[in-house]
Amino acid sequence: MQRKYLAKIFVTLRPSVLDPAGVAVQSGLKQMGYDDVEQVRIGKYIEVTFTSQDEDTARQNLDRMCDQMLANPVIENYRFDLIEVESQTGVY
Amino acid sequence: MQRKYLAKIFVTLRPSVLDPAGVAVQSGLKQMGYDDVEQVRIGKYIEVTFTSQDEDTARQNLDRMCDQMLANPVIENYRFDLIEVESQTGVY
Repeated sequence: MQRKYLAKIFVTLRPSVLDPAGVAVQSGLKQMGYDDVEQVRIGKYIEVTFTSQDEDTARQNLDRMCDQMLANPVIENYRFDLIEVESQTGVY
Repeated sequence: MQRKYLAKIFVTLRPSVLDPAGVAVQSGLKQMGYDDVEQVRIGKYIEVTFTSQDEDTARQNLDRMCDQMLANPVIENYRFDLIEVESQTGVY
């Protein structure tokens, strides 16, 4: 039986890495009158829907997907929430 | 007295909008052997640190920032979590 999961993945730049896009957005917000903005950091939010036999396997696969493709471990961190959305019994 | 807030903003494409980048990532994952991936959607995760006098004002300002600059309301949805990180009394 396969279970279906939705992973909500947050990929953020490591704190030591400069974020020129974030600085540009902050500058734009200031020009629009939002002077109270102190910092803007821009990352990625990725939703992946996939099937797996159980939650442990799902987390292991997701870790590998993140390390190999979704995030660049040299400059980025990632974390994810995993939600089981439905079970597929193959019966219906 | 100004309070300091951290907003965690999630900008996602509306469900009806095609996501070519997501399709490309899904295809890449398949080529790497992850055949169980059904869908990938790529959005933005933005952290904004700013000061405001109270939470209501903070939320109103943040809504405007999102509508005017951080998200494109025609094709994107956004939502945010707001966290008060510290209070600034100007005394220290």
